Amino acid sequence: MFSLTVCDHIMIAHSFSGAEFGPAQRLHGATFAVEAEFRAPKLDHLNLLIDIGLARDELRRILAIVDYRNLDEVPAFAGRNTTTEFMAHYVFTELAAACRAGTLGEGGKAVSGIKVLLRESPLAWAAYEGEVG
Amino acid sequence: MFSLTVCDHIMIAHSFSGAEFGPAQRLHGATFAVEAEFRAPKLDHLNLLIDIGLARDELRRILAIVDYRNLDEVPAFAGRNTTTEFMAHYVFTELAAACRAGTLGEGGKAVSGIKVLLRESPLAWAAYEGEVG
Amino acid sequence: MFSLTVCDHIMIAHSFSGAEFGPAQRLHGATFAVEAEFRAPKLDHLNLLIDIGLARDELRRILAIVDYRNLDEVPAFAGRNTTTEFMAHYVFTELAAACRAGTLGEGGKAVSGIKVLLRESPLAWAAYEGEVG
Amino acid sequence: MFSLTVCDHIMIAHSFSGAEFGPAQRLHGATFAVEAEFRAPKLDHLNLLIDIGLARDELRRILAIVDYRNLDEVPAFAGRNTTTEFMAHYVFTELAAACRAGTLGEGGKAVSGIKVLLRESPLAWAAYEGEVG
Amino acid sequence: MFSLTVCDHIMIAHSFSGAEFGPAQRLHGATFAVEAEFRAPKLDHLNLLIDIGLARDELRRILAIVDYRNLDEVPAFAGRNTTTEFMAHYVFTELAAACRAGTLGEGGKAVSGIKVLLRESPLAWAAYEGEVG
Amino acid sequence: MFSLTVCDHIMIAHSFSGAEFGPAQRLHGATFAVEAEFRAPKLDHLNLLIDIGLARDELRRILAIVDYRNLDEVPAFAGRNTTTEFMAHYVFTELAAACRAGTLGEGGKAVSGIKVLLRESPLAWAAYEGEVG
Repeated sequence: MFSLTVCDHIMIAHSFSGAEFGPAQRLHGATFAVEAEFRAPKLDHLNLLIDIGLARDELRRILAIVDYRNLDEVPAFAGRNTTTEFMAHYVFTELAAACRAGTLGEGGKAVSGIKVLLRESPLAWAAYEGEVG
Repeated sequence: MFSLTVCDHIMIAHSFSGAEFGPAQRLHGATFAVEAEFRAPKLDHLNLLIDIGLARDELRRILAIVDYRNLDEVPAFAGRNTTTEFMAHYVFTELAAACRAGTLGEGGKAVSGIKVLLRESPLAWAAYEGEVG
Repeated sequence: MFSLTVCDHIMIAHSFSGAEFGPAQRLHGATFAVEAEFRAPKLDHLNLLIDIGLARDELRRILAIVDYRNLDEVPAFAGRNTTTEFMAHYVFTELAAACRAGTLGEGGKAVSGIKVLLRESPLAWAAYEGEVG
Repeated sequence: MFSLTVCDHIMIAHSFSGAEFGPAQRLHGATFAVEAEFRAPKLDHLNLLIDIGLARDELRRILAIVDYRNLDEVPAFAGRNTTTEFMAHYVFTELAAACRAGTLGEGGKAVSGIKVLLRESPLAWAAYEGEVG
Repeated sequence: MFSLTVCDHIMIAHSFSGAEFGPAQRLHGATFAVEAEFRAPKLDHLNLLIDIGLARDELRRILAIVDYRNLDEVPAFAGRNTTTEFMAHYVFTELAAACRAGTLGEGGKAVSGIKVLLRESPLAWAAYEGEVG
Repeated sequence: MFSLTVCDHIMIAHSFSGAEFGPAQRLHGATFAVEAEFRAPKLDHLNLLIDIGLARDELRRILAIVDYRNLDEVPAFAGRNTTTEFMAHYVFTELAAACRAGTLGEGGKAVSGIKVLLRESPLAWAAYEGEVG
């Protein structure tokens, strides 16, 4: 299995609901360093898994919707805790849809799996991985 | 599949038995930077995989038993080479037991797999991953 | 010149005033990975520059005041843009005061300079360094 | 499952064929930071997955063939785009052959899988993983 | 003293003249991860050392001239060994000129020093630092 | 001012004397990731600060004396606490002597300063820097 990973990052504010969160119930924020890994069983005739430029542009387009925002005010996340693991799943869903829609070219249509990892600090990160197609 | 990873580190002394180890047969030491990854197929109602505070505390409790010690003198490791891969398995076993025992809460009981990775230097690391439950 | 560096991190929300900030004028957030470097021309009789435990505890105490907070609502920062370079200076000022006050022990009193570096993303960071005493 | 990873790096020149590559069609170069992960279901009687010294030496021997070279002029790659994902597969194939041939000792013969990851920049990397034996 | 650092990277080919270089006399390449640090004794009324967007854009403009190129064929470097330390000085010179020319705004005019660091591998890097103005 | 940095690492055991050290009074160990930075005001006719191969070999020779050892039993350190800051100074002294002795070639004789940084964990490091010549 081949994989190709591209990186980006976002800087967001949010708060959490639930006593389990302790001080993180207060409005605070995070830099999420994002790693988007695309998997496929083979490469194309150019020896590419996916067009790396298209992958970076699509990842940026998806992240731009939430970058420099208070996630508590993003309608799509209303009533949800935007934990790191939840946001990893959100980015996964958007990237998987882009692959299926052809936004990432023929390479994207051949992607069989995606893993999205978000580093919230030097000591903690979360990820979601799943099949595509 | 979701995953959440928390980090910590220990500083230990040890020696190895076996000519294959060369100079590492001498008493020496290592900083092990520890990454503990918990996996689960879904999140709870708060969008958490596991309580990150409980996970950090439990990892620290397990590591404290061997931190700042000469592993050659730890009874549990008598007659064993405490290689990086062996220590990764040791931490895995302790964390898996904590999940099953409920020490990590309801989230911990729902953990389906754990991977423990120990970095021994900038150029080498070892890991053990397995199912839980 | 000797130096000793200890690390910690905070997760904060804030917004900036000034058209120059573009989208960062919106309420957003950041993880600041903090590196606090203490400098001294010599070590004590134990070969320590400073007690590393005291240094970590004091850094945590200073950071705890702003950790998991919206900096826009912290009285001490009213009317100020809490840029990364500004926050580095803030932490420097607090650590320098702690050294002078003796909170960091005899080693702290002998510290001649401090540098505080805050990483806001994998691609950008800011620092403030100055003399102490 | 256990894993052990060793690292090395190479500095190569190359160019790509295909309009999709844009400016990378020009002769340019890369530092590939190489991570070679060996996997096995159990450890040997010394608690080793594989002899780390043999693993490092074999990885260096394989990389030395292409290190400090223009990959466009390496006969084995004639007419092929030496993308990061392709080179990860190349190193995988050579390491898998070494395991089967016994160059990595008894531990190498027991290796069940290998993953080779090449970091081309702080923001992009590619990998190939497969079974061995 | 305040400092602000922004990062980027380039992927270049080159060769070196001189027996001291050994295998690096052959045409090979490198990814240079570039860190550009701007220093100033104070911040502006917005608490900024320099406009981070302008700094990133100017660094990219300077790097784009050599990115994805064979440095042996860049006229400005004719007859010169484009070592990592030499390239750090080259980028420093260009950034210092931009500060003086006002391309980096009022903040850039107030910059008193610059340090440019180029990482050529995980195990080696070079830098040039100097005053500006 | 130019600088060139090369890296290596050692794995050592040691213990500390003094109640201030707490659990670190017990025999334990550390991986020290070593960064040796050489500084000089100009480059030679080849655009080199120092021969990077010689620098790596000399650093390895110095580190090999203490690598895979219990520092408590190294005669040169008898009765001394081998703290990270102390060890940074030790490596500095050895590298400075090598520069003066000509072991690092003409480039080494022109080195005006050296900084040695030892990372003991992901969250703490120490350094010593001084002039040479």
